[in-house]
Formats: sequence, C-alpha cells, structure tokens
Amino acid sequence: MQTKNPLRLVIVGGVAAGASAAARARRLSEAASITLIERGPDVSFANCGLPYFIGGEIKQRDALAVQTPQTLKAMLAIDVRTSTEVTGIDRATKHVQVRNLAAGTTESLPYDKLLLAPGAVPVRPSLPGIDDPRICTLRSLQDMDRIKAAAAGAQHIAVIGAGFIGLEMTEQFVRLGKQVSLVELTDQVLPPLDGLMTKLLEDELHKNHVNLVLGDSVAAFEAGNALICRLASGRTITADLVVLSIGVRPDTTLARNAGLALGKRGHIRVNGFMQTNDPDIYAAGDAVETEDFITHEPVAVPLGGPANRQGRLVADHIFHPTETKPYTGALGTAIVRAFDVAAGLTGWTEKRLRAAGRDFRTVTVNDNDHAGYFPGAKPILLKLVWDPANGRVLGAQVTGLGGVDKRLDVIATAIAGRLTIDDLAQLELAYAPPFGAAKDIVNLAGFTACNTRDSLVVPVDSLPDDPAAQILDVRPPPLVQAHPLPRAGVINIPLGQLRGRLGELDRARPVVTVCALGKTAYFAARILAQNGFRVSSLTGGIRAHFDPRSPAKLPTP
Amino acid sequence: MQTKNPLRLVIVGGVAAGASAAARARRLSEAASITLIERGPDVSFANCGLPYFIGGEIKQRDALAVQTPQTLKAMLAIDVRTSTEVTGIDRATKHVQVRNLAAGTTESLPYDKLLLAPGAVPVRPSLPGIDDPRICTLRSLQDMDRIKAAAAGAQHIAVIGAGFIGLEMTEQFVRLGKQVSLVELTDQVLPPLDGLMTKLLEDELHKNHVNLVLGDSVAAFEAGNALICRLASGRTITADLVVLSIGVRPDTTLARNAGLALGKRGHIRVNGFMQTNDPDIYAAGDAVETEDFITHEPVAVPLGGPANRQGRLVADHIFHPTETKPYTGALGTAIVRAFDVAAGLTGWTEKRLRAAGRDFRTVTVNDNDHAGYFPGAKPILLKLVWDPANGRVLGAQVTGLGGVDKRLDVIATAIAGRLTIDDLAQLELAYAPPFGAAKDIVNLAGFTACNTRDSLVVPVDSLPDDPAAQILDVRPPPLVQAHPLPRAGVINIPLGQLRGRLGELDRARPVVTVCALGKTAYFAARILAQNGFRVSSLTGGIRAHFDPRSPAKLPTP
Repeated sequence: MQTKNPLRLVIVGGVAAGASAAARARRLSEAASITLIERGPDVSFANCGLPYFIGGEIKQRDALAVQTPQTLKAMLAIDVRTSTEVTGIDRATKHVQVRNLAAGTTESLPYDKLLLAPGAVPVRPSLPGIDDPRICTLRSLQDMDRIKAAAAGAQHIAVIGAGFIGLEMTEQFVRLGKQVSLVELTDQVLPPLDGLMTKLLEDELHKNHVNLVLGDSVAAFEAGNALICRLASGRTITADLVVLSIGVRPDTTLARNAGLALGKRGHIRVNGFMQTNDPDIYAAGDAVETEDFITHEPVAVPLGGPANRQGRLVADHIFHPTETKPYTGALGTAIVRAFDVAAGLTGWTEKRLRAAGRDFRTVTVNDNDHAGYFPGAKPILLKLVWDPANGRVLGAQVTGLGGVDKRLDVIATAIAGRLTIDDLAQLELAYAPPFGAAKDIVNLAGFTACNTRDSLVVPVDSLPDDPAAQILDVRPPPLVQAHPLPRAGVINIPLGQLRGRLGELDRARPVVTVCALGKTAYFAARILAQNGFRVSSLTGGIRAHFDPRSPAKLPTP
Repeated sequence: MQTKNPLRLVIVGGVAAGASAAARARRLSEAASITLIERGPDVSFANCGLPYFIGGEIKQRDALAVQTPQTLKAMLAIDVRTSTEVTGIDRATKHVQVRNLAAGTTESLPYDKLLLAPGAVPVRPSLPGIDDPRICTLRSLQDMDRIKAAAAGAQHIAVIGAGFIGLEMTEQFVRLGKQVSLVELTDQVLPPLDGLMTKLLEDELHKNHVNLVLGDSVAAFEAGNALICRLASGRTITADLVVLSIGVRPDTTLARNAGLALGKRGHIRVNGFMQTNDPDIYAAGDAVETEDFITHEPVAVPLGGPANRQGRLVADHIFHPTETKPYTGALGTAIVRAFDVAAGLTGWTEKRLRAAGRDFRTVTVNDNDHAGYFPGAKPILLKLVWDPANGRVLGAQVTGLGGVDKRLDVIATAIAGRLTIDDLAQLELAYAPPFGAAKDIVNLAGFTACNTRDSLVVPVDSLPDDPAAQILDVRPPPLVQAHPLPRAGVINIPLGQLRGRLGELDRARPVVTVCALGKTAYFAARILAQNGFRVSSLTGGIRAHFDPRSPAKLPTP
C-alpha cells in the first residue's frame, strides 16, 4: 500500500466530467487524496433528465440524483464539498482558494493535480426586461424546481430557442397541457441540422399545437400581468413563463484568471490527455475545446457523453499515464425526441461543410425502421455526407418515427472506423422482421452514395427553376392525384409504363424524375439515362422535400 | 443504346439473391436479356416473415409477396419463369436445360452469364416415421400455408430445434394459444450463442409456458391419433403438429452435377466477386460459401441480408466490373425475438474461438438500454470477445428486453471498421434520456475490456470450486437476503462498508467479488487489490450467471 505522500487531486465541478474523474481516480488509487468541490448543492446529477421531471415523465426527483454528496463520500472515500466555490488558482504554489458559500469561510487547498470541470452556463442576452423572474434558464436541479413550480401556475409558456433543450422543454410543457410558443432565430428548428432534415420535426410540433415561430427572435420583454415578448418582427407573444434555451457558454472565469490558454470562443484549450497549458491542470466537460474527430480542428461539444469519457480519461492519465490513449476527438453525436419524432446528427452536416469551404457529396434516403411487411414499420429519413476524395463518411443526419438512434450510432461507429460509402453498402446489420431489413437504410444510403459516385444517377436537391426542364412524376396516377407535387406542368408516367411511353418525353430537354421516397425516381432515371435522356433524380423524394408524411402508396381500401 | 448482341443473363432462383441480382442488372443495363427461373410459384417473397403470418402477427399474406412474377416483369422488363426447374448446365456450350413443371415441357436456354441462387432446403433427418404428413418444415409460402392450416386444428405442437426459426415458430404458436414443446439437442436454446447468453431467453420461454426440452433429440416418430415423438432420452412428446427447424443444407445438386467446386460442407465455392470456378457462372445466397470477415476462412451464412447484397454484387461485377469492390466477407450478424426478449450475435463467439483453437478474451456486462433514471429502461446483457494480440473486437452477443439490435449493429460496424476495445470505450453514441446513456453499454464493454487488458481486474467466468476461496457478495444486505447467491459460505460486506471491514477477510486466501450486475464487484475488487488481496471479480454478476432477472436494487417501497 502506497500511503506515503499520497497524490492530492482536486476536482472543481462535481457533475458529469468531475464526478467521473473522481470515481475513476479512486478505482485507480486507493491512496490518493481526492477532493471534489462543487459550487451548487448537488453532485453527479442527471442534468439531461431535467426537462423530463418538469413535464412529469420522470416522476421521482430522487431518480435524477445519480449520487448524493453522502453516497459519493461513502463509495469513493473522497472529500466532497458542495456549495463551495473555487475563487482562484495559485499555479506557482499549486494551491486553490476555496470559499464555503454557506459559512462564508475561505481556505487554501494544495493540489498535485487539478481538474477543472466547471461546465457551461446558459446564455442570457442583455435584453430589455431580461431580469424578470418569470424568465428562466435550465441547468441545475434548482432551476428545474423553479421552472416546475412556475409552470404549474402558467397557461402560456414561451420557449426561446429551438435547439435540443428547447425542443425537449416544449414537448414537456405540451405534456403538461400548456399552450407553448417556440421561438427560433433561424428558419428551422434544431439549427445544427440541414434544413430539409427538420421538416418532420416541425410538422410534429404543429401537429401538437405548438405555436412555432421561425426566423424571429426576442427584442425585449415587457412585464405586466403576463410577460410580453416583443419579437424582432414586431410580433408579440404573451406568456406566463419564458424559458431561454439559446445556448450555453463555457464557465471559464477561473481558468482565464489563472492564465490558462483559452480558444477563440473562450473554451479552455486542452491536449489529447485533457491537459491545459499547465500540465498539472486538466480540464474536461462542457468548458473545454477538444479536437474534431475528422478534421482535428478545435471544437467544443457540450454534451454528457464526451464529458463523462473526458473525466475518466483525466484520471487515467494521472494514475497510469503510460496505458492511456489520447482522446480520439469529438463527433458531436446528438439526438432529441419531440413527441413521436426523433432527430439527430453525427459528424459533419452539409451546412457546416459549406461554411468551412470543404468538398462533400450527399444523398438523402427514405425507408422504414424495419421490414415494411412487418407490423409497426415506421418511416425514417437519413442524409449521408461523405468526402468525394476517398469516399469516407463525414456525417449523417437522421429523423423519423423509429430507429433513429440506432442509425446514428451505426454511422458514428462507421466514422470512428473511417468507413467509406462502399463499406456502408456492405455492413452486415442484424435483421429479423421486428428489428431491421435485409437491406437496412444504412446499406441503402451506401448503395445510393455509390450509385452517385459511379455516375449511375445524378441526384438533385431541389426541383429546377429552368422552364425547359421536364419534371417527371413516376408514382401511380391515383397516388399523384391524392398527393400532387406542388408544381405546375408535371408529367406523370408511372414507372411500370415508362419504357413504353418514352415518346411522351422530349429527349432534347432535361428530365428530373420524382417519386414519393426517391427510389422509384432513381429506377426511372436509370431507364431514361440508358435511353439517351439527360436526367437527374430528386434525392429523398417528395417526403424529404415537400411533405414529411407523404405516403409511398395509397392505403389499401 | 446498345441493342446489338445484348448480354444474356440467366438467373436460377428468384428469392433474395436472385431477385436482387435481376433488379440490379436491369438498372445497370436496359439492353441485357434477363431470365429469372424459379422452381416454386413465387419470386422475391419475404421468407423471414413466414413465421409471423402463421402466428397472425402479419395479417395479410400479400404483404409477404414483395414482388409477384407480374410486377417483377412489369418493373424490370425481364423474363420471369416460375414453376420452372433448371435440370442441367452445359458449361461448354453455355446453355441451361429448363423444364416447365406445369406443362412438363423442356427447353434449352443460352446464357452469357449464369447466376445460381438456389438457396437451401430444410434438413429432414431419416428417422423412423419422418414421412408423417404432420411433420413440416418451413421454407416457402406453400409450407407456410400448410403449417398455418395444420396449426388451426392442433392443440399440442412440437418444434424440433431451438435455433432462430425454431424460436420464432415457438413464439407464434404460443401466440395462437397452442401448447408448445421445444426440443433442442444441445443444452441451451440458440446454439450459436455461448451458453450463459441464452439464460434470459430460456427464462422467457418458461415464463410463456413453453415445454422446453434441452439436451434431447427425436429418435423416432410414431403415428397415432396424435403424433408421438420418441426422444433419445426415452421421454415422449405427443403433438398434433411437428415443425422441424434443425437447420438447412445448400441446394446444390445442379452445381455439383455441373462440376462446379464445392466446399467441405457442400456449399458452392465462390471468389470475392461471387464467381464459381467457372468465371461465367456466379453463385450467391444460402447455397454459397464466402469468406469470414475476420479470419478469411470459408464460411456459409444462410441469411437474407448477405444474400441480397451478394446478388446485387453479381450484377455489379457483370455490368461494371471495374467499379466493383469484392464481397468483404461475412460476420454472421443475426437476431431473434422471442416474446419480450431479443438475442443475437455478430462475429465470433467464445464457443467458436475455442473450437478453432484461437486466442481470445471476453467480458460480460449488464446495463439498461437507456438511462436508468428515465422511465422504461430495460435490462440488456452484452458479451464482448476480442483478440488479446491487438485488442481488435472479434464478436459480441447481446440479449435483453430492449435495444439489442442497436448494440449488435454498433458492434458489427465496429468489427467492419477493425475497431479495438479502446475504440469502443471512446465511441460517441447518441444520448438523450429516451435513447441511450452518457456511457452506453457498448462504452461500458470497452471500459471493462480495457480494465481487464490493463490488469485492473481479473475477471472470472464462474465461482471457484476451491474451498479456500472467499466468495464476497458486495450487495446491500437486504438485497442479498431477498435474492441470495445460490452458494453456501458467502461473505456479505456491502461496497460502502468494505474499506472499514477489510479485517473480516483473510488476506492469505483468494477472494472472488460478486454483485448483481458485475460493476460493484469490480469496484470492490479494486479496493481489495490495492489492499494486498488476491482478488478476482465475477464478470456479468448474478444476473448473467444465476438469475437473468436478478434485480440491481430492491424496489422502493
């Protein structure tokens, strides 16, 4: 037993990264002196669960307290100090100044290794009226309690920001029977996703009577009996409670004051072992900037999964550095559920690749989450993004009524394995009728991407404005009549008749084939291309572009 | 348009591989002459769905006919000949002899390229009484209709063979209210899996009142009012209907007679482009032997997914050979649902590695399919197998009440990407409370495997027989009392008290730590190891070894 001069580890922040580091540190060293300091009253709570307790989907508040200060102390034999703030770091003498917020006492604690896991704080813009107590943000169990109490008496609630948390809060407020307005600055919900990929989510919000306000933002709040949100457009929304969910910023005052290197957007910079520019000071979680898995550029991914793994890695590097592998970088895999729809992404989006000026190709494919002939098959839409230089998968976005998480996880794993579109086509995934399909949508995305790469089809992302273009709808006429394409002058020839009716098309003019899901349009494009037509095919079909619930066939009467 | 001397492709077998090849061939060549010959009356039907129509879970028979001969003809402009048998291949003149089974007429058809996709036939052992018409096998829509009709009048049904199909049939017969006996030669259901991994399935069968007979086989059938199955053990089972599901054998008479090279177990041998030893004759689907993805040894995987992709690859290689990538080999990913339990595998099992004399390591981990604090979390058990030489993942088996398919797919993708146990630990999977966990069970398996590799813990797969060994149960005493370990002389010290009660253990004797899921036992083992004990930890805990529904905590009163 190493009882002489045990290593002194001080951890600032006791939620995801901090608590993970403490637990792993104790497993690796019974001898170490471990002190966990948390500004709030709670440690290691399930912050991703907060919206669900507000809405009552999680019924027991206790369920959110993964560990209490007491259980953490008992299990890990560590010094847990809650309601305690670290006010300064003296890097020269390796001490932190701490202040007990309840007692007001201060103390100086020595460390050999220090981990900063301060997390992030919700952005609260300095708008007129912002200090009204009815305007809340959600980060802690106390925020949660406050919002839950306020929601109980509220009839109208405004959620500002339609990102992950905003969507979760919206769903939960609707669940409570509230009238909810959701205001988003950009012209779509879930701004990290490419525009088309959020249509189903937006439709689902409308279906659930959410007052969705896109492309607008709050300019000012006015207090009254209710709170009036004045939007930039001039519109007003009246609410009894406002929840701001417009993003978070890293909580890095301590790091900044200690002279630690920060990134462009203010995050703590770390190397692959989560060390700051002071090798005895580590940082992990929402406050840090790590590397993008694909490009190795600095990136901040404030999510629970990475925070947990980073905290664990810090303990590994402190206690058995030679066996520790560096952090592999972040993919930014994320998912959200809103009512019956799930949506998420992993890796890069088209939007982000465009902004970065990088080359890419995409396909968008529709399918069911499991074999269509088995009951309960649910639609799913997948957009795949890859690098044309080597076929490597760069990212994917998935939305649908089932199986979304599975496809995101498969593609996140594919990116981790540096797989190509050819590899996706060949993936051997689990298939039995309740679970998948002989050709899963991930295989289908691979097939479709390879078809594009091999010039078997020219995919287009929108219908052409060119009046010379012939738009060819290849669905059966009864389906076309029931769900017409919102466009004049569309030619309708169903696939089964196409070979016999080529004469109805003008070979001198380009053709764009269209169908419900994109597959039949591709089949038609192959026939036309081999018959001398200049043809392209609308990727993702009517369902991806115009109507996220567009049926692939009419219901059997 | 290439209309001169179009390539003549003849395809023998019109279900998964054959129909996929025909469809892809037509996309690649409008000019080709494509003939699809099928012995049965149906093409391109969903054979994985047959059990579910028998049990009424799939209600419409039409749903199983993915394509009819008519729709296939109309969509693909191919010559579809059902109820037609190919009786011989003349490789020298490149002709096949075909016989129309209805008309009795014969014909010789020329080919430039020939694809054999004859599939497999159910094994029907030559036992006394085997020809009784109440003994059925399931492969075609006609078999399905026959079994469905027979089941309607049956009260007792015996299913022989507890593999994938046997389990599906058992479930569906129970669904119909029948009394079902399931007889399996080996001492477990789902023989491809390692023994411990099927405990939950077996428990689920018992829960659903299935008469499960393991380690026994049918020696003879005796006809009477009911059919008597005499088992090797001397036991008898009386049934009104018997379904044999003891495996399939490749249907390769045609290939054998044509002098094509066959593998050791009688499958057609093919190269990476699915060519037989005659380069103008391809083979795909259940009748072929491809390569194992990991070892590159010959392997036969009679499953729908591979068959579909192989058929597609054949068309690719015929029509654009330079762009075609070879088949990457088979993982044997498979899954089955039986009542509320799903179970499956991908890659290699311990059983198979042992039989092959290959080196491996394993861990078995328990978790929930999503965050435990969110309602509806369901238990899941994952066994990971990896190569100690390089850490590469060799395979996984997963069983549980939810999320099984997702983890199999993630690990199948990880194997395809040649990921290691370190990579699994770092995978960034989609997490929101309804969908996953900050540390998914796949991450957990990676962590645990790395802990084993790094000698942080010595996992054991069973409790030692050594009477000197101290079995230490670290669960809370009330849980131990409610769900005791089936073993005498177990010491109980809950984890939270362990550091203070080390004196109760004998440092001179080895300790094996045990808990419900395996995690707390690992924590305890770390404390003991660092305090000078020789300690190992039961991997997978009580749940994996003794009771597949063993609770991790007592229900809150």
